[in-house]
Amino acid sequence: MKIIIVGATGTLGKKVAEAFAQKHEIIRVGNTKGDVQVDITKEASIKAMFEQIGAFDALISTSGKGPFVPVSQMTGEAFKSGLLDKLLGQVNLVLIGQHYINRGGSFTLTSGILADHPVAAGAALSAVNGGLNSFVLAAAPELENGVRINAISPNVVEDSPAYFDSFPGEIPVAMEKVVKAYEKSVLGIVTGQVIKVY
Amino acid sequence: MKIIIVGATGTLGKKVAEAFAQKHEIIRVGNTKGDVQVDITKEASIKAMFEQIGAFDALISTSGKGPFVPVSQMTGEAFKSGLLDKLLGQVNLVLIGQHYINRGGSFTLTSGILADHPVAAGAALSAVNGGLNSFVLAAAPELENGVRINAISPNVVEDSPAYFDSFPGEIPVAMEKVVKAYEKSVLGIVTGQVIKVY
Repeated sequence: MKIIIVGATGTLGKKVAEAFAQKHEIIRVGNTKGDVQVDITKEASIKAMFEQIGAFDALISTSGKGPFVPVSQMTGEAFKSGLLDKLLGQVNLVLIGQHYINRGGSFTLTSGILADHPVAAGAALSAVNGGLNSFVLAAAPELENGVRINAISPNVVEDSPAYFDSFPGEIPVAMEKVVKAYEKSVLGIVTGQVIKVY
Repeated sequence: MKIIIVGATGTLGKKVAEAFAQKHEIIRVGNTKGDVQVDITKEASIKAMFEQIGAFDALISTSGKGPFVPVSQMTGEAFKSGLLDKLLGQVNLVLIGQHYINRGGSFTLTSGILADHPVAAGAALSAVNGGLNSFVLAAAPELENGVRINAISPNVVEDSPAYFDSFPGEIPVAMEKVVKAYEKSVLGIVTGQVIKVY
C-alpha cells in the first residue's frame, strides 16, 4: 500500500511511519523535512504535494497546530489560527486528496481528547478537535469509490512529557497503543469513526 | 434582565426574542435590521456592538451561516467561510463579550443536529456545529465571575419547511420547544451544556 503520512517528522508521525514502513511504501511529508514538504494552511501547497506524489492508497495526517491560551486572554486571531491550521488544514487534505486517492483508499485524521474532555487553556483546540470529529462523521458517507475516513482522537501520549501538567488526571497513553489506532483505521474496514485512545 | 439577541431578525431569533420580551429588556441585533447591527465575521463590528449596548446580562446568538455543499464539490474556501462565520463569529461574541457581560451573566450559542447526525451536503456545517459544542464544553469552566455558557443544538424546525427535504427521517421540532431550550440556558443554572432539541 502506498501511504502518505503528513506530519511524519513529528513525535507521533515518526512512530506511525515506522510502524507502517515495515510492510508498506511510505511517503513521509513534513513542513520543512521529510520526502515531500507541505504547508497544510495553503491549498496550493497541498495540491502541489498531491501532484508530486500522484495516486495513493492511504493518507494519514498527524499534523496541525492550535493555540493553547486561556479563554480570558484568547483573541479571535489566535482562535482563528487554530481553525485554519489543525482543522481546515486537515479537512483540505481530504477535500483536495479525494481527487487523487485510489479506489478503496482511506483518510485518517488526528483530533484529540480535548473534544470531549477540556483542560485549562485548551478551548480553541477543543473546538478544532470537535469540528474534526463531526467532519469525519459527515464526510464518510459522502466519499466516493469506497474511500473511507476516520479520526484518531488520542489522549496525551507517553512520549510528550512536556504536556503532562496540562492534562491533570489523565493517564498518558503508550505510543504503541496510539499507533494501533492508525492501523485499525488504515488496514481495517471502519469509516466515519472517531477512534478514541483514552 | 438585559438580553442581547444576535440574529433576532431571523426565523428562530424572532421567536426567541418574542418569548423573552415578555419579561425582559431585549436588544434585537441583526445584520442589517434590528435595534443594533453587527457583522459577526468582523471583530471590530462585534466590539462596536458591545460598546454601543454596554453592560448586559445575557447574550443569545441564533446567527451564523455555513455552506451546504456535497463533499465531492466542496472547496476549501467554501468550508472556510462556514468556519469563519457560524463558528468563529459566535466564538468571537463570547471572547469579546466576556469583557462586557455582567457578573453571573450567560452566553447561549446555537449549533445544530448536524454535529451528531450528518445529512448529505452538510459536512461543513457538521464541523461547525461540532466545533461549537466542544468550545462550549471547554469555555464554561474558564469563564470568570460566574458567567455561564451553553449551546442549543436544534433539529430542523417546523417553521423552516424549505429545509425538510435535506433532513430525511427527521421529525421537525416545534419552535416553542426550541425556544424553551434557550429559556433553560438563560434563566436556568446549567453551564457547559449542549442542549439538544431532537
